Amino acid sequence: MSGCVTIVGLGPGRVDWCTPAVQERIASATDLVGYDRYLDLVGQSTNAMRHGSDNRVEAERARHALDLAEAGGRVVVVSSGDPGIFAMASAVLEQLDQFPDRWSDVAVEVLPGITAAQALASRVGAPLGHDFCVISLSDVLKPWAVIEQRLAAAAGADFVIALYNPRSRHRPYQFADAMAVIGRCRSLTTPVVVGRNVGRPDESVRVVNLATLDPETVDMSTVVVVGSSTTRVLQRPAGSSVYTPRTYPG
Amino acid sequence: MSGCVTIVGLGPGRVDWCTPAVQERIASATDLVGYDRYLDLVGQSTNAMRHGSDNRVEAERARHALDLAEAGGRVVVVSSGDPGIFAMASAVLEQLDQFPDRWSDVAVEVLPGITAAQALASRVGAPLGHDFCVISLSDVLKPWAVIEQRLAAAAGADFVIALYNPRSRHRPYQFADAMAVIGRCRSLTTPVVVGRNVGRPDESVRVVNLATLDPETVDMSTVVVVGSSTTRVLQRPAGSSVYTPRTYPG
Repeated sequence: MSGCVTIVGLGPGRVDWCTPAVQERIASATDLVGYDRYLDLVGQSTNAMRHGSDNRVEAERARHALDLAEAGGRVVVVSSGDPGIFAMASAVLEQLDQFPDRWSDVAVEVLPGITAAQALASRVGAPLGHDFCVISLSDVLKPWAVIEQRLAAAAGADFVIALYNPRSRHRPYQFADAMAVIGRCRSLTTPVVVGRNVGRPDESVRVVNLATLDPETVDMSTVVVVGSSTTRVLQRPAGSSVYTPRTYPG
Repeated sequence: MSGCVTIVGLGPGRVDWCTPAVQERIASATDLVGYDRYLDLVGQSTNAMRHGSDNRVEAERARHALDLAEAGGRVVVVSSGDPGIFAMASAVLEQLDQFPDRWSDVAVEVLPGITAAQALASRVGAPLGHDFCVISLSDVLKPWAVIEQRLAAAAGADFVIALYNPRSRHRPYQFADAMAVIGRCRSLTTPVVVGRNVGRPDESVRVVNLATLDPETVDMSTVVVVGSSTTRVLQRPAGSSVYTPRTYPG
């Protein structure tokens, strides 16, 4: 009898931000499949076999999980954040789409998690309190021209913009280009929230603006939220709060 | 001594989709403040005093929560979904912004939750697997022209689009107008996922497309996800799966 693949999101890394539904699936799994670093974030003891792999082998990892389930396993594919947002859920469905005659008896389920933009937003207040976009700046799987077009559209229509995978060692200059595209439609005083490893022990969260944002503080472990024209910064005793009002003028 | 206000998100309604961090804050609260219907979703017993209110009094509710905290309470403001996404976190920060000399000793914290678009996406696969926008169609707090401009920008740049507050009794016709704006840039076969009360006992999730979408099936308890040009539907034994590939052509 075939088993099942459940693709789960741990949230940003803090055990108490991982939903009980996800914790239950992990507890009853026969196999945990994932990027080594995310398997390390599983905060509970389990008897499951762990199948760790490198970051850049999503397709192979998805097929491996489906094969384990076809052999009868209760397989859990572990993502950080939300598995449906730039993560493993699409990778598993892509394999099912590509090989329609394989794994047809395997049940597939997705369980959501808190994604990095939500975690970062909560740390400073509510910068995502109004219409927003979520964009990955990685051009490994899409052309940079598409990214620039989306940034321009999002900035032009005054969305708050959350940026994933903002800057890597292999593409250190595109982040500044992206900020320049946004800057064509936004004031230099627009609030920008930069979060690194949010929800982990070495979390760092900074509130800057388009003028003072230093690309060197941004890497692949960072999420960046650029405010809209209405996003505001409050100075409170505990630090800066950032929010986007629910009301839009006009 | 002043207390604190924690604005929490229960997630979509299922107790096991509510994070332990949120459950812990609710358990130790002296006061729970929120829209009556959301207070009813609190799935745990607590000794806190409950201060329920109507849906349309966010500003008063926020001031009430801050006043209770100023008097020393450990106050939890309860939202469904994520409190930072079209919910109470911005409403509380708006009050702090408007009255800078009040409540300065009150600590304010936000704890994220699974928002409706994530819950809906997980039910069908991974339609939010690539760049996406989240837009409220309510024109109570922003002009309809801004909404149309954002829909056109998002559709033109081929974002997946998640729509909150899509259609109410007071504005029954705008939803079809919104779909028409999107339809100018999208094929009629574009997948659309319609979810009502996702995560609750009476959950309903349907996969349709721009041609077969019936506005009558959409109301204020519904979230709608409109795919991009690359979003795909798979027919599987358990039903339709929808995902947006991580790769974008070009």
